[in-house]
Amino acid sequence: MGIRLGILGYGNLGRGVESAIKQNPDTELVAVFTRRKPSELKIQSQNIPVINIKDILDWKDKIDVLIICGGSATDLPEQTPKYAEFFNVIDSFDTHAKIPEHFNNVNNAAIKGNKTAIISVGWDPGMFSLNRMYANAILPDGKDYTFWGKGVSQGHSDAIRRIEGVADAKQYTIPVESALEKVRNGENPELTTRQKHTRECFVVLKEGADPNKVEHEIKTMPNYFDEYDTTVHFISQEELTQNHSEIPHGGFVLRTGKTGINKEHNHLIEYSLKLDSNPEFTSSVLVAYARAAFKLNMEGNFGCKTVFDIAPAYLSPKSGEYLRAHML
Amino acid sequence: MGIRLGILGYGNLGRGVESAIKQNPDTELVAVFTRRKPSELKIQSQNIPVINIKDILDWKDKIDVLIICGGSATDLPEQTPKYAEFFNVIDSFDTHAKIPEHFNNVNNAAIKGNKTAIISVGWDPGMFSLNRMYANAILPDGKDYTFWGKGVSQGHSDAIRRIEGVADAKQYTIPVESALEKVRNGENPELTTRQKHTRECFVVLKEGADPNKVEHEIKTMPNYFDEYDTTVHFISQEELTQNHSEIPHGGFVLRTGKTGINKEHNHLIEYSLKLDSNPEFTSSVLVAYARAAFKLNMEGNFGCKTVFDIAPAYLSPKSGEYLRAHML
Repeated sequence: MGIRLGILGYGNLGRGVESAIKQNPDTELVAVFTRRKPSELKIQSQNIPVINIKDILDWKDKIDVLIICGGSATDLPEQTPKYAEFFNVIDSFDTHAKIPEHFNNVNNAAIKGNKTAIISVGWDPGMFSLNRMYANAILPDGKDYTFWGKGVSQGHSDAIRRIEGVADAKQYTIPVESALEKVRNGENPELTTRQKHTRECFVVLKEGADPNKVEHEIKTMPNYFDEYDTTVHFISQEELTQNHSEIPHGGFVLRTGKTGINKEHNHLIEYSLKLDSNPEFTSSVLVAYARAAFKLNMEGNFGCKTVFDIAPAYLSPKSGEYLRAHML
Repeated sequence: MGIRLGILGYGNLGRGVESAIKQNPDTELVAVFTRRKPSELKIQSQNIPVINIKDILDWKDKIDVLIICGGSATDLPEQTPKYAEFFNVIDSFDTHAKIPEHFNNVNNAAIKGNKTAIISVGWDPGMFSLNRMYANAILPDGKDYTFWGKGVSQGHSDAIRRIEGVADAKQYTIPVESALEKVRNGENPELTTRQKHTRECFVVLKEGADPNKVEHEIKTMPNYFDEYDTTVHFISQEELTQNHSEIPHGGFVLRTGKTGINKEHNHLIEYSLKLDSNPEFTSSVLVAYARAAFKLNMEGNFGCKTVFDIAPAYLSPKSGEYLRAHML
């Protein structure tokens, strides 16, 4: 029997976790929990029960780690602290500014229940954070850069869809290649928001909508688009469905730093991701950290953690001996 | 008072550690230990004692972590187990095949003395190993690639210098760009040794030496050069000194992997380093892990560790609160 995992929430992320579990033979899916009517939810796995969330506590001794796959805006701030008292939990909370508050809420609950929680797991926050942190510890005298994309921003796509006259839309965030090159060349540029990323939008109009008006509304939308160079393409629903249904993403974390008695040597540390499916990659990270949460809990290491607190070996199904012999 | 560090061995690596300590205000250098006559060793720091290695045990209560900066061939297999009983120690042992044996020797000594040791710290083994391990845990269905360079290989430079007729030499290991591109494009190539790296040699001949003979000897040298496409340039000592005195290095760790119910999505994780000074970068990693060794020892976590066993937050001088608020 493997590590018994439960999935709470069956959107893109929940489906990704379901699929990632199949790639990790030391884990197994035991139940999917949903706010929907279980009979109306069709999951990919055979013979795995779908349970209404109201009955979730009946499962507290049958699940080793609950992977909470809700959204950061309203689901996770409520769900993760609520269930961290009864389950070891993992979430991908990504509202950076609210992480300290979320951490404290989850920590209190986990401590109360002798459970282990790991929050803000994924790639940013997550793998990108780790790389920022490692690079800062190694090169204290340096400068950080993060670029995102090319990839689909769900938040920006949603913002366009809320504009009157828009039937559907997809927005791609694109890093500015020349800015990236300046960083890699050690020029330590000071980059404005506009100099780092551009935004490209594919928009399907409702019948009779005015494209000029929609384009103007997009390009001037505060926070989302006004500080960027934005390109808008109007296309048909067929074209959007055919060419823009995937959810790719990725990006780059760089740190440049100096060493030497006279700071005469420059160094560049670069980490990058190129992902065909943002939710499936995030899910793969969640499952690896679920393994870590299980092991930590078995050792009596309770409370809330982040990726910074987890020794890398906990993520692997391999033994210390194996890792030292084959991966070091 | 900061974390009190000692340096054992004052070559390129020892000098790098000395310089890195100056960049980390929570650490301080308290002594340099050498096999040489202390009066003959001139170090960069003012007012720091240089001590003969025979007196090192007098310092066991005055040093929090001893950073052992010897070579992997003969120094570290003897020194690290020997001193791990009396000091928390860090080394950069890089003979991959002998890591399990070295680990056991150091572990026994550290356990005996209630000390904490971290071995094989640097970038490969070290940061590259970490990235291989994280990427494998996240993408279990995938393929690993490591490329080194462009950079100076000390081992290969030494091998050339041992050839009769050679006065001096520097060898650069260079990754094959087209092979890297194939990996990045998700082609999952099977690459031979020759297809991954080329070798470029800058050689100063002794008077009267036959360049054809030397070039032939280099290119056919077993293990070092025979499996590579090698270029040999004969240059003057002045040119070698002027253009090839630095010790740059770097490289790339990549993992490509698939996710999805039908493995329909591809992902690329890439980590790369571009280092002006290989020993100074390695030293910077050593100092960050010295901080970790000190903290772990204070917590009563004894024995031998590798980078896989150390939670990232231990490397940072910042608090958990700070890291969560600013780097996650």
